[in-house]
Amino acid sequence: MEFISKRGIELPPSPIRKLAPFADDAIKRKIEVLHLNIGQPDILSPVESIQSLANYSEKLVKYSPSNGNLSLRESIATYFQKNNLQVDSSDIIVTNGGSEAIIMSFFAITNPGDEIIIPEPFYSNYFSFAHITGVKIVPVTCTIETNFILPEISEIEKKVSPKTKGILICNPNNPTGVVYSKEQIEELIEIAIKRNIVILADEVYRDFIYDKLTHYSLLNWDTKEIQERVIIIDSFSKKFSLCGIRVGFLITKNKAILQTCLRFAQARLSPPSIGQYMAEEALKTSNEYFIKVNNEYSERRDILMSEMSQIENLKIGRPSGAFYALIGLPIKNAENFCEFLLKDFSLNNKTIMLAPAEGFYINKHLGKSQVRIAYVLNKDKIIEASKILKEALKEYRE
Amino acid sequence: MEFISKRGIELPPSPIRKLAPFADDAIKRKIEVLHLNIGQPDILSPVESIQSLANYSEKLVKYSPSNGNLSLRESIATYFQKNNLQVDSSDIIVTNGGSEAIIMSFFAITNPGDEIIIPEPFYSNYFSFAHITGVKIVPVTCTIETNFILPEISEIEKKVSPKTKGILICNPNNPTGVVYSKEQIEELIEIAIKRNIVILADEVYRDFIYDKLTHYSLLNWDTKEIQERVIIIDSFSKKFSLCGIRVGFLITKNKAILQTCLRFAQARLSPPSIGQYMAEEALKTSNEYFIKVNNEYSERRDILMSEMSQIENLKIGRPSGAFYALIGLPIKNAENFCEFLLKDFSLNNKTIMLAPAEGFYINKHLGKSQVRIAYVLNKDKIIEASKILKEALKEYRE
Repeated sequence: MEFISKRGIELPPSPIRKLAPFADDAIKRKIEVLHLNIGQPDILSPVESIQSLANYSEKLVKYSPSNGNLSLRESIATYFQKNNLQVDSSDIIVTNGGSEAIIMSFFAITNPGDEIIIPEPFYSNYFSFAHITGVKIVPVTCTIETNFILPEISEIEKKVSPKTKGILICNPNNPTGVVYSKEQIEELIEIAIKRNIVILADEVYRDFIYDKLTHYSLLNWDTKEIQERVIIIDSFSKKFSLCGIRVGFLITKNKAILQTCLRFAQARLSPPSIGQYMAEEALKTSNEYFIKVNNEYSERRDILMSEMSQIENLKIGRPSGAFYALIGLPIKNAENFCEFLLKDFSLNNKTIMLAPAEGFYINKHLGKSQVRIAYVLNKDKIIEASKILKEALKEYRE
Repeated sequence: MEFISKRGIELPPSPIRKLAPFADDAIKRKIEVLHLNIGQPDILSPVESIQSLANYSEKLVKYSPSNGNLSLRESIATYFQKNNLQVDSSDIIVTNGGSEAIIMSFFAITNPGDEIIIPEPFYSNYFSFAHITGVKIVPVTCTIETNFILPEISEIEKKVSPKTKGILICNPNNPTGVVYSKEQIEELIEIAIKRNIVILADEVYRDFIYDKLTHYSLLNWDTKEIQERVIIIDSFSKKFSLCGIRVGFLITKNKAILQTCLRFAQARLSPPSIGQYMAEEALKTSNEYFIKVNNEYSERRDILMSEMSQIENLKIGRPSGAFYALIGLPIKNAENFCEFLLKDFSLNNKTIMLAPAEGFYINKHLGKSQVRIAYVLNKDKIIEASKILKEALKEYRE
């Protein structure tokens, strides 16, 4: 490892990555692998967005402004206004996916060694963003037994130290599917004001809410006192099944934070121009698209829950949003089980790939027997996958 | 500046940015501003690349692999092989422009506080990449009097300390247009081997070489001893006038460096899919495109040099590559002069925007009276711009 930096060596590899060679090997053995391990939706992108490529009329694909095209930022603002959330185009910086929006925000509000509080389990790439920016993640533990709701406010406040710069929530949540209630968010706001820290709200799954629940965006609390400490993270990736265009954005009404993020944005010149063009077209998609997509995910969730309830001794976190569920398995080591699924098991020449949940926790032991299931496959496949899980659990011996 | 981190406050703003409000104001006063200040080429992107968008047939724009599509990496490898440089698709990571390739490389080989040696003047965003990664830039000063060639090898070696992890060269150079000779590069290699450090070669302008010179890529020295310490940075932005697609790449045959960069690449999921599709199409562009583009830039360079030679008391760095020239003006403060050009001067209702060279130096005073001219406008406009410069210098009083 000559030449490699300590921070390079210590950057955690993607937790799913470890299993990839076993999946490749299964495919070589002609086993069909049902991928429930990643957040790549199978729902098609809006046709209008892709068809619009044929009308792209620029002869020179230039850099866009570092904060993104004004026309796209205006369209994003309009989208929020339609949802009764007051956003102005000047509150927005367009980024290389939601990932970059989080990295920029961390840079803007923390120095190396500073702390960000995050409810665990959390999206595993938060580990990487924290590592890259030298941030220490302080977890607030949520448990499958209480369906991953936030603990008592006093428990959260205990985590705030002089080094704490912010609280990051993902709502609806990846990996748990939990949608935070109005009251829970109000408690977080109370802490943020009292302890003078920022709230970062990763709302990339904001359009996927089930059971007729209401999604409370941090933008809902529109007083200056609150908005000056709020950064919203959003993206076109999941909203419109456009993961590959790499267009996300951040929103903040705190001009100092915005200007600081903009300087980071200038350093990398601009977000992708063609992706921005497609994103703008995607925003013209009719509301029916969302209704259809929402229904589809909601039905998948129902089928998955119903299938899981037929397997003995599972602990099930019931998701109300996004397209993930965390399942506690009646085994000691879920990673070994995921490996077993790929290496040693198949049913009618098929098997499933799951994400071991350990990678979503700071306190690794909490996720040791859990897996995350992404319901990004159609209903028939979800039923099939559930059967495979059931049979595999019967056959698996630790 | 509540909530803003020290590193956020200290991140240098783009040096050109400061002048932007004056340019905006000039435009409001109906003054046409000729932009010689930025590296956005005016040469059109290859038509085939843009037309290919109409044939994009995916219905779902997915994440690509974190290291980029295999088909694109294979096409890149073939492009290098055609230029007699041995590159394999597995040596490449596709990035969000060349910018990200440099940031990833810095992360992979340095810890905060480590040093990278860079000949100055250098591309001003290197300051930002160093700031973001906590790297200290140690400059090797090149002067306009010697047309910005590298100083004696002993001068460079003096800069190597126990904290030095690499030498970064930009070849052909932004902002000087210098193309390093075979002998100069061999001297750098000698130091790199002797002191056991890495050479990062930013070769994004590799296709723009004039006067029938040969470009010596760091890939030309293909022994294991050398290649294990080489990282090449490249991009589609300038090569094909496709700045907006945000597709660059790094090449290294050092597998440990590649794997470490890949983990950083995984953290941001993937480079843009549509940009990669266009990049692959662009690589099918016939060699005539490059010949034409090269001739165009070469002629512009000649005209610019001829015009500049008619202005008294200029110091001129004669570029042999890329599309930049550094010019020493017979004034004390070039930044003030650039402001004057936008605020207080016009010729036939036109003026020019230049980049003050101070932002390209660590030793600011060296660039105090210099400006960078990007010859990204057609020949008539370059002649016009030169006249404006000549007249403005007559009128300007410090």
